[in-house]
Amino acid sequence: MNADAKKTVLRMIPYGIYILTADDGKGSVAAATVNWVTQSAFAPPLVVVGVKTDSGAYQTVKAAGTFALNMLGKDHKGLAFAFFKPAVLADGKLSGQTFRKGSTGAPILDAAPGAVECRVTSIVEQGDHHVVVGEVVEAHLHKPPTGRADAAILEMRDLGDNVFYGG
Amino acid sequence: MNADAKKTVLRMIPYGIYILTADDGKGSVAAATVNWVTQSAFAPPLVVVGVKTDSGAYQTVKAAGTFALNMLGKDHKGLAFAFFKPAVLADGKLSGQTFRKGSTGAPILDAAPGAVECRVTSIVEQGDHHVVVGEVVEAHLHKPPTGRADAAILEMRDLGDNVFYGG
Repeated sequence: MNADAKKTVLRMIPYGIYILTADDGKGSVAAATVNWVTQSAFAPPLVVVGVKTDSGAYQTVKAAGTFALNMLGKDHKGLAFAFFKPAVLADGKLSGQTFRKGSTGAPILDAAPGAVECRVTSIVEQGDHHVVVGEVVEAHLHKPPTGRADAAILEMRDLGDNVFYGG
Repeated sequence: MNADAKKTVLRMIPYGIYILTADDGKGSVAAATVNWVTQSAFAPPLVVVGVKTDSGAYQTVKAAGTFALNMLGKDHKGLAFAFFKPAVLADGKLSGQTFRKGSTGAPILDAAPGAVECRVTSIVEQGDHHVVVGEVVEAHLHKPPTGRADAAILEMRDLGDNVFYGG
């Protein structure tokens, strides 16, 4: 296999930007920027997230058995970069962002135009990121989109001409 | 859970458009338009596809144990709609499209700017679509993108203002 061809073809896949959050109820609260996300079923509504196995977020999601995907808006580029670093919980804020606890305990960022909360139904333990499958059990719509919903989300391409995570 | 909020938030996820193909070597050749796709690991390179369980494509992928994802280009709107219908193999063409067999046997469409071939490593059997995880074993780059790779692919939003598959 030609490694350059593989990289280029895989980078054709377009991605939105999300803050994955979780709270295991025992002191570990995670928030991390992710982009490997897709829905995988309508009934029940399932989503899939590729999560880096050596990340704190992975451990917290696994321990919690629940997580939230906070969709970022077009003006949240700074927020995306902020959550590339390990999240800091201070003064009731997550890396400076106000939030409230969702029904699963996962932090729902006030800034996010929308978020879904999920219950982990399975994890495929393959590769340097694992496939976390979650059933959507709660949805929060903070800012209804005025046009298409998928035109309202921050995308990988919005982060910079040479910013990719994939390939 | 508010069903409308769930639908709108899930529709914020942006999608590219792909033709999923497979050949089980026993006469079943599948080709179907899909959009629920994400990479899920770098090492090994894994991709995830949500595949409708009552589709011929699902049966063929499962029997073959391999599949290809053919990325569509911006000018392939007609091709996307053509493969919403069951594929017809006639005169050596798949629903009118010329192709060649990849190393896995899966049809690689000549029209696709790029394609990856995968070996199925696991299937999460949950919901009306199952999560098919595949390791990328071959890549074909027919038309190197001139700008960002993810700006070259046909997207869900390109199919029409009210066209969605998700929510």
